[in-house]
Amino acid sequence: MKHVGPSAARFSDKMREECGIFGIHAHSDSAAHTTLGLHALQHRGQEAAGIVTYDGDHYHSHRSLGLVGDHFSSAVVIDRLKGHAAIGHVRYSTSGETLFRNIQPLFAEFAFGGLAIAHNGNLTNAISVRRRLVERGCLFQSTSDTEVIIHLIAISSYATVVDRMIDALRQIDGAYSLIALSNEALIGVRDRFGVRPLVLGRLEGALILASETCALDIIGAEFVRDVEPGEVVVIDSEGLRSMRPFPPAASKFCIFEYVYFARPDSQVEGSNVYDVRKRIGAQLARETGVAADIVVPVPDSGVPAAIGYATESGLPFELGIVRNHYVGRTFIEPSDRIRHLGVKLKHNSNAGTLRGKRVVLVDDSIVRGTTSEKIVNMVRDVGAAEVHMRIASPPTIESCFYGVDTPTRDDLLAARFDVDRMAVHIGVDSLAFLSPDGMYRALGRAGRDPKTPQYCDACFTGDYPIPLTDHKGGDDARQLSLLSDED
Amino acid sequence: MKHVGPSAARFSDKMREECGIFGIHAHSDSAAHTTLGLHALQHRGQEAAGIVTYDGDHYHSHRSLGLVGDHFSSAVVIDRLKGHAAIGHVRYSTSGETLFRNIQPLFAEFAFGGLAIAHNGNLTNAISVRRRLVERGCLFQSTSDTEVIIHLIAISSYATVVDRMIDALRQIDGAYSLIALSNEALIGVRDRFGVRPLVLGRLEGALILASETCALDIIGAEFVRDVEPGEVVVIDSEGLRSMRPFPPAASKFCIFEYVYFARPDSQVEGSNVYDVRKRIGAQLARETGVAADIVVPVPDSGVPAAIGYATESGLPFELGIVRNHYVGRTFIEPSDRIRHLGVKLKHNSNAGTLRGKRVVLVDDSIVRGTTSEKIVNMVRDVGAAEVHMRIASPPTIESCFYGVDTPTRDDLLAARFDVDRMAVHIGVDSLAFLSPDGMYRALGRAGRDPKTPQYCDACFTGDYPIPLTDHKGGDDARQLSLLSDED
Amino acid sequence: MKHVGPSAARFSDKMREECGIFGIHAHSDSAAHTTLGLHALQHRGQEAAGIVTYDGDHYHSHRSLGLVGDHFSSAVVIDRLKGHAAIGHVRYSTSGETLFRNIQPLFAEFAFGGLAIAHNGNLTNAISVRRRLVERGCLFQSTSDTEVIIHLIAISSYATVVDRMIDALRQIDGAYSLIALSNEALIGVRDRFGVRPLVLGRLEGALILASETCALDIIGAEFVRDVEPGEVVVIDSEGLRSMRPFPPAASKFCIFEYVYFARPDSQVEGSNVYDVRKRIGAQLARETGVAADIVVPVPDSGVPAAIGYATESGLPFELGIVRNHYVGRTFIEPSDRIRHLGVKLKHNSNAGTLRGKRVVLVDDSIVRGTTSEKIVNMVRDVGAAEVHMRIASPPTIESCFYGVDTPTRDDLLAARFDVDRMAVHIGVDSLAFLSPDGMYRALGRAGRDPKTPQYCDACFTGDYPIPLTDHKGGDDARQLSLLSDED
Amino acid sequence: MKHVGPSAARFSDKMREECGIFGIHAHSDSAAHTTLGLHALQHRGQEAAGIVTYDGDHYHSHRSLGLVGDHFSSAVVIDRLKGHAAIGHVRYSTSGETLFRNIQPLFAEFAFGGLAIAHNGNLTNAISVRRRLVERGCLFQSTSDTEVIIHLIAISSYATVVDRMIDALRQIDGAYSLIALSNEALIGVRDRFGVRPLVLGRLEGALILASETCALDIIGAEFVRDVEPGEVVVIDSEGLRSMRPFPPAASKFCIFEYVYFARPDSQVEGSNVYDVRKRIGAQLARETGVAADIVVPVPDSGVPAAIGYATESGLPFELGIVRNHYVGRTFIEPSDRIRHLGVKLKHNSNAGTLRGKRVVLVDDSIVRGTTSEKIVNMVRDVGAAEVHMRIASPPTIESCFYGVDTPTRDDLLAARFDVDRMAVHIGVDSLAFLSPDGMYRALGRAGRDPKTPQYCDACFTGDYPIPLTDHKGGDDARQLSLLSDED
Repeated sequence: MKHVGPSAARFSDKMREECGIFGIHAHSDSAAHTTLGLHALQHRGQEAAGIVTYDGDHYHSHRSLGLVGDHFSSAVVIDRLKGHAAIGHVRYSTSGETLFRNIQPLFAEFAFGGLAIAHNGNLTNAISVRRRLVERGCLFQSTSDTEVIIHLIAISSYATVVDRMIDALRQIDGAYSLIALSNEALIGVRDRFGVRPLVLGRLEGALILASETCALDIIGAEFVRDVEPGEVVVIDSEGLRSMRPFPPAASKFCIFEYVYFARPDSQVEGSNVYDVRKRIGAQLARETGVAADIVVPVPDSGVPAAIGYATESGLPFELGIVRNHYVGRTFIEPSDRIRHLGVKLKHNSNAGTLRGKRVVLVDDSIVRGTTSEKIVNMVRDVGAAEVHMRIASPPTIESCFYGVDTPTRDDLLAARFDVDRMAVHIGVDSLAFLSPDGMYRALGRAGRDPKTPQYCDACFTGDYPIPLTDHKGGDDARQLSLLSDED
Repeated sequence: MKHVGPSAARFSDKMREECGIFGIHAHSDSAAHTTLGLHALQHRGQEAAGIVTYDGDHYHSHRSLGLVGDHFSSAVVIDRLKGHAAIGHVRYSTSGETLFRNIQPLFAEFAFGGLAIAHNGNLTNAISVRRRLVERGCLFQSTSDTEVIIHLIAISSYATVVDRMIDALRQIDGAYSLIALSNEALIGVRDRFGVRPLVLGRLEGALILASETCALDIIGAEFVRDVEPGEVVVIDSEGLRSMRPFPPAASKFCIFEYVYFARPDSQVEGSNVYDVRKRIGAQLARETGVAADIVVPVPDSGVPAAIGYATESGLPFELGIVRNHYVGRTFIEPSDRIRHLGVKLKHNSNAGTLRGKRVVLVDDSIVRGTTSEKIVNMVRDVGAAEVHMRIASPPTIESCFYGVDTPTRDDLLAARFDVDRMAVHIGVDSLAFLSPDGMYRALGRAGRDPKTPQYCDACFTGDYPIPLTDHKGGDDARQLSLLSDED
Repeated sequence: MKHVGPSAARFSDKMREECGIFGIHAHSDSAAHTTLGLHALQHRGQEAAGIVTYDGDHYHSHRSLGLVGDHFSSAVVIDRLKGHAAIGHVRYSTSGETLFRNIQPLFAEFAFGGLAIAHNGNLTNAISVRRRLVERGCLFQSTSDTEVIIHLIAISSYATVVDRMIDALRQIDGAYSLIALSNEALIGVRDRFGVRPLVLGRLEGALILASETCALDIIGAEFVRDVEPGEVVVIDSEGLRSMRPFPPAASKFCIFEYVYFARPDSQVEGSNVYDVRKRIGAQLARETGVAADIVVPVPDSGVPAAIGYATESGLPFELGIVRNHYVGRTFIEPSDRIRHLGVKLKHNSNAGTLRGKRVVLVDDSIVRGTTSEKIVNMVRDVGAAEVHMRIASPPTIESCFYGVDTPTRDDLLAARFDVDRMAVHIGVDSLAFLSPDGMYRALGRAGRDPKTPQYCDACFTGDYPIPLTDHKGGDDARQLSLLSDED
Repeated sequence: MKHVGPSAARFSDKMREECGIFGIHAHSDSAAHTTLGLHALQHRGQEAAGIVTYDGDHYHSHRSLGLVGDHFSSAVVIDRLKGHAAIGHVRYSTSGETLFRNIQPLFAEFAFGGLAIAHNGNLTNAISVRRRLVERGCLFQSTSDTEVIIHLIAISSYATVVDRMIDALRQIDGAYSLIALSNEALIGVRDRFGVRPLVLGRLEGALILASETCALDIIGAEFVRDVEPGEVVVIDSEGLRSMRPFPPAASKFCIFEYVYFARPDSQVEGSNVYDVRKRIGAQLARETGVAADIVVPVPDSGVPAAIGYATESGLPFELGIVRNHYVGRTFIEPSDRIRHLGVKLKHNSNAGTLRGKRVVLVDDSIVRGTTSEKIVNMVRDVGAAEVHMRIASPPTIESCFYGVDTPTRDDLLAARFDVDRMAVHIGVDSLAFLSPDGMYRALGRAGRDPKTPQYCDACFTGDYPIPLTDHKGGDDARQLSLLSDED
């Protein structure tokens, strides 16, 4: 899901998955299970959440800024969300009223009934389609590209919801997984490249759709299979129907889901994420080994790769950096004069472990490099003898346009500097990245197929599998609304 | 403005004006002046308020439940509402999120730019037009009939905003005054019968539109004239243009504005409201005189008529009933066992004034009669010798469908009983109403013209000047949304 | 009740009663009835309220900023306030946490049990007593002088609660009425001069104490009698005991309760407040008659006197100034440039009534004169021919130290100017005040007894009946707390 | 700090440190640095926080429920907390107003000036002392035992703050570290057994007191030394004075600080906590080795010991259980029917890692055993072949009365069952605990000295070094207030 307005990534030094989605059909505790499922997907979006249920007569909706656990778990909320079918959504977001109108699932009423849609991903021709729709007299209420889909459904000349939705999706490009709830069915769709994940599960006869398997685990549901690229699944009282209405395409699953986005306990496209990360770490050790005393992860995301690295290299694995999980959502650095203290809000280096040691510091990726620089400083401050940084992915040199909140290219450290200058910039004795081929090998491939890469790795290679229609228009073209975003 | 959901009038014993509107063009303090104007119009709607401004590039919006003075007066809010043109709206409302999406002004973006609309009144064919639009693929976000106008504008084949708006309004029936703000102009429209008020004012060269003149007074603006029935005024950098694009019709200004809705210090259609009310009271004394000791108003609405009655009758005017203005917006009666105490939250009878007296009690109208009954009880409880109730309007026997929140016909006391039985019901020694002709005489007419009444007095006569298209469909037809209202 | 910090009177142009109190014993709906009683006393204090109940085992407390109707009327609150005895308090206040610790009733636990105290008035030697107590090791938690009483009770060497309370009150000077609730009894006390009001009522066998009779009316209770100056009433399972433990003194009831504080429907010390105000208006007409066309009150406080004036003078009574009751509690004037518009937030002059007229404007008092000046301007702006202001009390030339929030002497217009210069200052054609003797005559006396005035009229005369021990120390002495007030 | 009311430990399966404290003297950013210090100590108390500053004239206070980062980091809050000296406090707590009055630092005003106190620990004779004080006429405002100290200071016959504080502390028993701020000085005290930690630091000449060194790290301050058991340090414009006014005693530092409470990056009594925990894990492996495939920590607290165990045993260290850090503070389990799903809110087992494996599960301690049971179930559910639980401390068989929130003895699993039955209860193939001697060895001792244990290990041994005066009175004696706790 895309929105206009200050990008959260401007302030973070991580790429951020923008959404997690969940849906359940024909279960008496649909709202409660959706709440749990969204909680398990919270790592994919922590700023806002929404659930829509359908009870056979009415749709019920609850949306809120903040964490699922803080805003959706009370009996009052759950009881109001009546019905045997539900879909939900977690997302990142900006602030203020603008945001509120963008919280998903979006709901619309058509001549044929209601439809709620929750969407993970990004449409790459949304702006041009939107312009065409506005000219036709369609009124947009949000700046979300999901609303483009809804209008295309509203004006489709097909008769059924499913046909209208397929008609709509055929007109758009992009990377997306989506879950929709109509009067008759729960519907799941993955784009034809399968960039974003979507899995199918089962609990006591009820079928479930979710971004990751960890959302099945939390409710005790069984993992059935991945929804396939280009597949439409329709779940109704008759059971599940599968359709493949889009032109076939080579699978392009987002490789960064393995690097950082997905939860380590999820099974993604056939692989356990934690295992992949350990294999990446081992591969990294083989490619970039260095004489050192200890292997220290940048917590929490660097931990599995660091374990793999330590095991492969035979060096001790040590928690030399401690993370404070109580940072909260609103920590404002207290004053200009002490702004430089900010980095320690989240991490502290453990002098007892690091002093005098040659340290291999393992992190999953470098985006802006601001955090890396501060952490290296902290490690040096407590007396580390050498600091060798090892990154469990190739250099991030391009922005993502497929549903991930990334800085613009100019803010990516690896787009500005070569590896040697990056090493100087962040202050390490040595710096090394995993090779693209190494990455593919950790995923069980012989290497990257340069002609038809087996994954979407555009952020490492600039090789974008889906056309970036809107992007060509430049940034000005992205001003979607006359209504001020700050209000 | 109409909405689906629990009608506030279900719980009140007054008819309630549903909206007040205000707009200002080409003034550097547009938002602050709109805040003040809405504050002066607060009696027309106390539950929610909204302002939209336009700064030449962006529209800025702030909407809130509650009083204008509590939510729009901070510098933070005013500063965010940038621009030299603004429109605003106050309204009654229900509760919850449903409500929030209905707070006006509504804002929409078209191919040609933005448009904000604030609307006072009710469209009488909104549901049938809405159905036609939904079938065409229009997506509705609110249950407000104002949104019907917006969609009609969006799909109009005319080129300019003004032409599209006129095209849209030609397709709807109803009683309305509306103010719109586009990229180019501030626009004011009154329906061709002129049922709801709209006045034009001027302040330091800036032109202003408002429901009542009291909104001009508060900002020190000069009253220019009433916008006329069926008139469209377009205010832009060229000044003011006036158009009359609708079929001409006999003026049907709402007579109840004089009885209760308008503020006593407003000039409405050429008359000062306080003066009219005193003349009504005098006429009432002439028509319904009775031997008594004192004239006591039911505060606050009965006060001007009671002054007129007292002067005409030569009886002393006494504040025998005291009103508590601190009731607040959320008083919940504390427990079932003491529910009967509720009436005294708002009024108390003054024993010192009433004991042993023959009292003429003057009120503006009787709707359900519940308050009248309680007040008469209070007056008797402190020892009044006789209670004669005199009502400064004819019996209210029909619902309003032109923008006023009234109970259904079955809940109107005068629709259920004749005057004698009403007197028994509320427990008075005598009860009398103003005659329809007396009402027209107080307004300076020779009497009511039965063939073409000079005002809309449908609530007293059942004589509805504008067709009630939607109403014929019955109540079922009014379920506009699949989205549950309670959420 | 006195507190340190920004005085609300600094911002208002009215003297303000600081508190209203209520207590009920042996009633199954004690909390609900206390809520209603406080609501009826809301005019005595609108910023904060509190209730403490006792259920035989525990005390229960609820305190809140804001109106009683907004914060005490929910079933949740009432149900938590368990017990058959309750006391409550409404007050003015400042803002922030400082304030919160000052909301009454104060509650304390002693070796012998609990005690809650609600207090209306002001102790005039509180600071010197407090200093002595702090030196002894007493810890103060608030800046309220009520806490002085509580500490004196705690360290008293007497055995019973009542004896300890009498022991405590013998050590303090001041004007106060107080209601206390202990494990055994509901206790009411009026200072020996009887400056502040306190009445006794009865409902279904339960005895009630309240500041004014309007709090009895709202719950349907019967007025029994005023608690007398210097009387202590103890209400427990045995019934009511009356004691007179203090040295006798001549009664000095606050004459300003008649002028402005009390509600017009209350019976105060044997007189109906509305009647007194009308008699004051009539006396004012006799003393200060002037050739004019209409009599116009400054609403709402000037209305009864204006009725009396109009009747006595034979001039028509007209509502030439309309009051907007929706001002809300937080109206912030929107910007510096339009600050001058602020006065119209609350009042508007009715041109239709005033134009070309010689107007007698009647108000209850002049404090700073700022409001008078603005209202006179408004009346002139709409074209009044002459404006004659008549004030229904003598000039206010001194501050009150007995529980009323007044500006310092230097801010009182009548302390700075003689009547002629006041007239010029506020811009009227003539200005006249009621004479002190006229005031006493309206109260049924032959005139003011200069040797032993029958009322406390210190604000008009500077004749303070109770010693101002603390006041002699100057303002510095009033800094009670090292804890910053703004926090 | 102790309080009456529902113990948080009733709902948790962890022992919980109840407080963290911080103070800084003579620094221009005292409030901002205290905010950061408290943030670093957030693991010691997450429910409420408070800061008091002194600016030479006034004390300023801000207290709030919730996380430091959410409520103390705004510029508005920091700017209001003026002054060059500050103390702060984080704590666990219950809910409602009761709680609010218990948030520390407590502030009191004495004849000699103000004093703020922040306290970590528990007084074991607070109730008996409190009773004596109440009989003397002292009024208590909170149920915190810290207030006992304040009253003892208030009534002390000594002249200076420091002498009065020492006089007060001589009258109480208990385990405590406290930081106080007076008009003249920042004061730190540790009880004579040194049960709770307190360290001294320095930043740019300013001296700092804090519960742990991680609070020094976050502001870039240097660790000077531990405050010693029984030491009073007085920090004023003259620098630091050290006193030892209490009878000497053998040091009894809380051994559980090493096991669980302290942050791994803190230096506590000369040892790095992370190192100690790894040594504990290694010792555990030596004492309780078992044939297995992988070592899996229960995150996050079991991680360091599991690393030690894995290294010592040569088994691979694997993150087989993933923790969800987004649980939030208010997750309510959605409905009774799915309550059993609750455990997965926080943890999920990673099937990919565990399936078919013989797993050594390492946790820091077992309190109630409820979490252990659920985690073992989860591990078995995904197909682990064997589950061997190893606990990095001896069995917890007794409650703590020295400032840690523990369940009552009857709820401690190890107090109800022997190790074999515990193993059956939680469903493991084998269960083993660290021996007391092994614990002491990991701390660098030859073993536990049974006559004079070098630490307080009462929770493992029942050997309480400080008399439990209040505890003897039974639970009834602990009802401290007549004011209901729920309000």
